[in-house]
Amino acid sequence: MSNTTPLSQPDGRSATLDALLDGMQQGRWQASDLLDASFKNADARDDPRARVYTRRFERTARAEAASADRLRADGVPTGRLAGLPIALKALFDVAGEVTHAGSQGWQPAAQRDAVIVDRLRREGAVLTGHTNMTEFAYSGLGLNPHYGTPDNPLAPGRIPGGSSSGSAVAVAQGMAAAGIGTDTGGSVRIPAAFCGLVGFKPSQSRIPRQGTFPLSDSLDSIGPIARSVACCARLDAVLAGQPWRPPTALSLTGRRFVVPSDYMLDGMDAAVEAAFTRSLTLLRDAGATLIEAPAPVLASLPELLEGGGFTAAESYHLHRQWLQEHGERYDPRVRTRIEKGANLSAADYLELLQRRRERQRQADAWLADFDGLLAPTVPVVPPRHAEVASDDDYARLNLLVLRNPTVANLLDLCAITLPNHAPGELPSGLMLIGRNGEDATLLRQALAIEAAMEQRC
Amino acid sequence: MSNTTPLSQPDGRSATLDALLDGMQQGRWQASDLLDASFKNADARDDPRARVYTRRFERTARAEAASADRLRADGVPTGRLAGLPIALKALFDVAGEVTHAGSQGWQPAAQRDAVIVDRLRREGAVLTGHTNMTEFAYSGLGLNPHYGTPDNPLAPGRIPGGSSSGSAVAVAQGMAAAGIGTDTGGSVRIPAAFCGLVGFKPSQSRIPRQGTFPLSDSLDSIGPIARSVACCARLDAVLAGQPWRPPTALSLTGRRFVVPSDYMLDGMDAAVEAAFTRSLTLLRDAGATLIEAPAPVLASLPELLEGGGFTAAESYHLHRQWLQEHGERYDPRVRTRIEKGANLSAADYLELLQRRRERQRQADAWLADFDGLLAPTVPVVPPRHAEVASDDDYARLNLLVLRNPTVANLLDLCAITLPNHAPGELPSGLMLIGRNGEDATLLRQALAIEAAMEQRC
Repeated sequence: MSNTTPLSQPDGRSATLDALLDGMQQGRWQASDLLDASFKNADARDDPRARVYTRRFERTARAEAASADRLRADGVPTGRLAGLPIALKALFDVAGEVTHAGSQGWQPAAQRDAVIVDRLRREGAVLTGHTNMTEFAYSGLGLNPHYGTPDNPLAPGRIPGGSSSGSAVAVAQGMAAAGIGTDTGGSVRIPAAFCGLVGFKPSQSRIPRQGTFPLSDSLDSIGPIARSVACCARLDAVLAGQPWRPPTALSLTGRRFVVPSDYMLDGMDAAVEAAFTRSLTLLRDAGATLIEAPAPVLASLPELLEGGGFTAAESYHLHRQWLQEHGERYDPRVRTRIEKGANLSAADYLELLQRRRERQRQADAWLADFDGLLAPTVPVVPPRHAEVASDDDYARLNLLVLRNPTVANLLDLCAITLPNHAPGELPSGLMLIGRNGEDATLLRQALAIEAAMEQRC
Repeated sequence: MSNTTPLSQPDGRSATLDALLDGMQQGRWQASDLLDASFKNADARDDPRARVYTRRFERTARAEAASADRLRADGVPTGRLAGLPIALKALFDVAGEVTHAGSQGWQPAAQRDAVIVDRLRREGAVLTGHTNMTEFAYSGLGLNPHYGTPDNPLAPGRIPGGSSSGSAVAVAQGMAAAGIGTDTGGSVRIPAAFCGLVGFKPSQSRIPRQGTFPLSDSLDSIGPIARSVACCARLDAVLAGQPWRPPTALSLTGRRFVVPSDYMLDGMDAAVEAAFTRSLTLLRDAGATLIEAPAPVLASLPELLEGGGFTAAESYHLHRQWLQEHGERYDPRVRTRIEKGANLSAADYLELLQRRRERQRQADAWLADFDGLLAPTVPVVPPRHAEVASDDDYARLNLLVLRNPTVANLLDLCAITLPNHAPGELPSGLMLIGRNGEDATLLRQALAIEAAMEQRC
């Protein structure tokens, strides 16, 4: 018999990591209860035709939960994540499991854990399984023809966002307390925003990527998806191998945030615009100064995406042999995007590197005048599945959905998305972007913004 | 009236930086005397049809020499290079001068000094001028159709080696006390070896390259050419921005040096082989252990040069616009080499980066078993000018001359060449290669090798 836990009730906002840890500490539930709840939710809600978990780590997760419970019961000081069920995007190596990265699974089983998987284990996390994702993480919508596309947990009939689709849905559905994803152009933040969660993309160098299947070495970052900023901060410290000091909210009074008056606000739909305007009002009420200003550096970013940019070049380099050997196994929408990389020359690639460095310098200087940048994470609410059925609509919406998050990848900034909608509204996210390396400050500001936004409910 | 100085007598082995500094300290000559001697030698020996100096910095060099003399006379502590005439390869930015890099000079004048030029000035160096080089540093032979090809100072009728041809010839002819060059595939070490001098290529990251006209960002290193290992060590410390502690020779007793039994010994001519064998005997006599062993990692290096490799890709990226605008001004032999880079794809380039990292790891592990690697710097003595007249011979000899030095660039090792011939013999060099970052140890070993090799004279 297992105890009722906050995870037992999917969508329960109270299922933060701090609450789950407190409950274990106080004996109200155990790690095994949390794992039971996670797997029960998966049993009840995971759809074999549109899978959230592509694989559950039943045996090892049970052992990890039992181990956490035993240690806690016997008064052994436990890790910072002891007993918390955490889901992993299927591109992180887990010893003995196939890192399929959303593909049809022709990779061999991993020999050892990815660095971040090892770090999670060392802190006592219960690794629940590998979750669904866009094949090779190559799109922001979260569609997958091999494993199916999970439905949006807050808005049935709509897409979940990607590429870390399963990690976000698992959290939203109570199938895990948090998920770990990767973000190359928004792949943590888009599904977090579409699923009503918090998603954090750190500065790239913060988290080591050994054992993580790459999409673009230049742009890939690893980050958490969870219910709150504090949850993300706790996970980020583990992923980064840093000591844990709970962050405190920075006062918003006198903080200056820039809202770019073009590019990131283009093409907003009515629901996103209304929610964004409401959020800005709440932040002003909390003392923040919001400065609408043009950002010329943003307008020049699309040239870094020409011909597929870094992602096409770098993934084509990785895949070109496999494409020859079994190109027919690829999702055609992913394959065509990877193959664009064949047309980029070495000089084009070097030009991308050079222009990126210039844009990074410009953006860093521009952002130095502000405490951060605010924008809608995605300018539209999650599209319906039917809206992305044709290749043309898929291409157009994919670019639109990626546009804002990608700013932080191209410029290697840190960024976080917070739920921006009120209960009952279609989901959308509010994104805060900070300068490279200022991740700790970003998280402390996000705590304050999160508190201010509670008013919207 | 100027005093006689060791620079007055070209080829004077005694014109080391220590000797020149001591003479100034003791009042036997002044900085102005050293500059006079340098310029007199240039007047007497520099050939307008085959220039060593493409430009002399007459006015500023006089001011620098006078300043050094005034400070010394008045007892002001002076810099580590105060009053030493130093020649610069014409790809280092010098404020107000055109960084022509061996081309027909369509670049604008530099606005400010390169980082290494600034470091030399801060330590009181007298910068004598810009010296001849292969156009854009793209060959190891040292030929230049725009400014002429300086003759070999030790073996008239033969080429000087390149690409830092003028910097080496200037030192050998007493037109400067030392020269600074760049080394992408041997461009410091080849002319040093051909001109009977010491040339040092440090680990790449040791010396900052801002203000230095690039050939290949992946491979370019900056290094000194001078009369002795101690001279190179003194200059290197300034270039690297490190404090100066005169290095002491490490005993050779028990040191284990590997001599690759293939690849780097292939194609040696009789003179080089005889000199190399003699040198190995001297080192054995001095207590060193020499281990002939195959080096599989070396044999796989040519694949990093396929299609022109990093140098073609990176220089094509830099030059592609200029080639369109005034490709007719390029040395055709350089132009065709740069244009090979157009055929490399982004994936090819990424593959080069990946294979290079693998080779670096392998080489580092292999070299960990030894104190260093010994090989002939170049397997042949300097070719006669007529031997490189045809494009085919040029291509063949260029590859042969670059082969051994390039090992240290591709693997980002540190390397030094020492004179290997006895007086009267055709010039050749003995190269010592050390692991990345072990530059200080390499220099200390080279001091010991240099001392042991004195016996050959």
